[in-house]
Amino acid sequence: MSYAGKKVLVTGGLGFIGSNLAIRLAEEGAEVVIVDSSVAGCGANLHNIAPVRDRVRLIPAAVCEMGSLGEALARTEVIFNLAGEISHTHSMEFPERDLQINAVAQLQFLLACRQYARGRRIVYAGTRQVYGAPEYLPVDESHPVNPIDFNGVHKAAATTYHLLMSRSGDLDAVVLRLTNVYGPRMALNIPCQGFLSNFLRRLLLGQTVEIYGDGNQLRDPMFVDDAVEAFLRAGEAQPLPARIYNVGGPEALSLAEVASLAVAAAGAPGPVYRPFPEHQKAIDIGSYYTDWTRIQRELGWVPQMRFAEGIRRTIEYYRRELPHYLASAADPTCDLPEHIGFRRRLRYHAL
Amino acid sequence: MSYAGKKVLVTGGLGFIGSNLAIRLAEEGAEVVIVDSSVAGCGANLHNIAPVRDRVRLIPAAVCEMGSLGEALARTEVIFNLAGEISHTHSMEFPERDLQINAVAQLQFLLACRQYARGRRIVYAGTRQVYGAPEYLPVDESHPVNPIDFNGVHKAAATTYHLLMSRSGDLDAVVLRLTNVYGPRMALNIPCQGFLSNFLRRLLLGQTVEIYGDGNQLRDPMFVDDAVEAFLRAGEAQPLPARIYNVGGPEALSLAEVASLAVAAAGAPGPVYRPFPEHQKAIDIGSYYTDWTRIQRELGWVPQMRFAEGIRRTIEYYRRELPHYLASAADPTCDLPEHIGFRRRLRYHAL
Repeated sequence: MSYAGKKVLVTGGLGFIGSNLAIRLAEEGAEVVIVDSSVAGCGANLHNIAPVRDRVRLIPAAVCEMGSLGEALARTEVIFNLAGEISHTHSMEFPERDLQINAVAQLQFLLACRQYARGRRIVYAGTRQVYGAPEYLPVDESHPVNPIDFNGVHKAAATTYHLLMSRSGDLDAVVLRLTNVYGPRMALNIPCQGFLSNFLRRLLLGQTVEIYGDGNQLRDPMFVDDAVEAFLRAGEAQPLPARIYNVGGPEALSLAEVASLAVAAAGAPGPVYRPFPEHQKAIDIGSYYTDWTRIQRELGWVPQMRFAEGIRRTIEYYRRELPHYLASAADPTCDLPEHIGFRRRLRYHAL
Repeated sequence: MSYAGKKVLVTGGLGFIGSNLAIRLAEEGAEVVIVDSSVAGCGANLHNIAPVRDRVRLIPAAVCEMGSLGEALARTEVIFNLAGEISHTHSMEFPERDLQINAVAQLQFLLACRQYARGRRIVYAGTRQVYGAPEYLPVDESHPVNPIDFNGVHKAAATTYHLLMSRSGDLDAVVLRLTNVYGPRMALNIPCQGFLSNFLRRLLLGQTVEIYGDGNQLRDPMFVDDAVEAFLRAGEAQPLPARIYNVGGPEALSLAEVASLAVAAAGAPGPVYRPFPEHQKAIDIGSYYTDWTRIQRELGWVPQMRFAEGIRRTIEYYRRELPHYLASAADPTCDLPEHIGFRRRLRYHAL
């Protein structure tokens, strides 16, 4: 790795993956600038960057507030673009909010990057969700893009923005299409962040883990350190062999197996099975696991952490840090800012 | 056809295809409401609906101005949704404008439709451009969606909005993916509306038709009456066999053949060949022609008009009506409204 002394910018750097990435970059000796507007519901938590708080610069701005970002962008050598809303379920209830955060703000950000950081490498946090329900398994990068929820539509649009601006030479983008990522610093106090966040919240609250349906759907959970490693490699690869990489975990596990391993790691009872809620069924994609052979072949990346060990470390982290993940949920509801088009109140789980 | 007495709404009804559709619907005896905000650069022309002006209701509003539309939507039985920006080239220069018109406004419109016209049939004017550069020919509906310009990204997003809201039962949508459409009422005074508009403008101005490159790329131009017929069938099909239909012309012709036929129909000299401009080359998709066997099989639609005859009728129309298509270009530049995010001046061809 050669990030020592490098000037990097991390959007969404107070969020789950972004903060883990920012910490690793700071530890490698990079000059880290974090841009994060702490949009309610997107997982930002100032405590996430506690280990490096005195070593990183934080710009509390939305990625589309170009005025605040020009000077920082101009100095940046590599941009890690992780700002966004990840919840598929929220996007179905608040599609305009998702459009604003994941497409409008992203386009504005990329236009600012073109202006202030023309030609620079940018690594975008894409998602497997753009593929929709897999036509075959494991899913490689040739799989058709066919999103089945608004979040997938807008993440697909932003992905293509990155690619179009790379074709024109305005930017030098890499898109990582991430599977379900878990690990320390996930938001636990926001509903609808996926089954892993949900399992963890229930375990840490002493509640029984619930599985919707039969739990036979396959997933390949990826530990956040593995995701971070993929970002680092994508940020420095020269020459860049491809612009899209699927990034996933080392094992295809059923949701029932994931739940059992998590429950065992926590020493908790369960899980129990519940009928699939209708609004979840509509956007369920069935089984998914990643063909990550392209990034293995071209960037030498392989996922290292098996789920049993990764979930053990995750639970250990939260048992130590839980108050910091309760604090931000002190108010069980939260008014989201008008300017991002999220006018209705979003109910939070009271931890 | 059974549109007599039916209450229909046509967005973009002052534009090229929209006005031809509105005229046909009015002639069939439908109660037609046109919604069109005459966004500069999108082809609206009040003269387009001259034949039925006293028989249709015109709401001069953007599709996202829900306040103006609720009452009209609530009465509507079938919605024909043709509002939008079609220029691929403009979208590369003004991506935020294209995003606003083709995705943001469309999402807002569909949310209004859900509220006021829940479950109603809506036929959306999609585009072949969402497929990008074809992987095979002719292009059927299974071809991957892989847009290579911002217009394609946003039209793909709006297409998926229609499909998602149909999955949830909020709407009953059909998407027609149209190839290059030509015929009476095309805007001739707006640059970058595609090669057919360009050929026609030059022919009518007595200028020589120009072809970029060797002119060997294939296209399947579709006469607007054929497009209108596809909309009518998609608007009334019960039950609806599929939600996406590719709609194209009866012949695959090279651009050189298209130019020669147009030139012959106009009795003009030419064409001449020019080098491909760089900014056009970047978003050129190579050859394209449509596999329209799905709509033939399921809705009984077949394109009727061969290009030689269609272009003859088109030229005849413009020779008669040309002043009305010059008038709107009296001012060679045009300030586009702030609220659609198009702040720069768009230069118009002075006819």
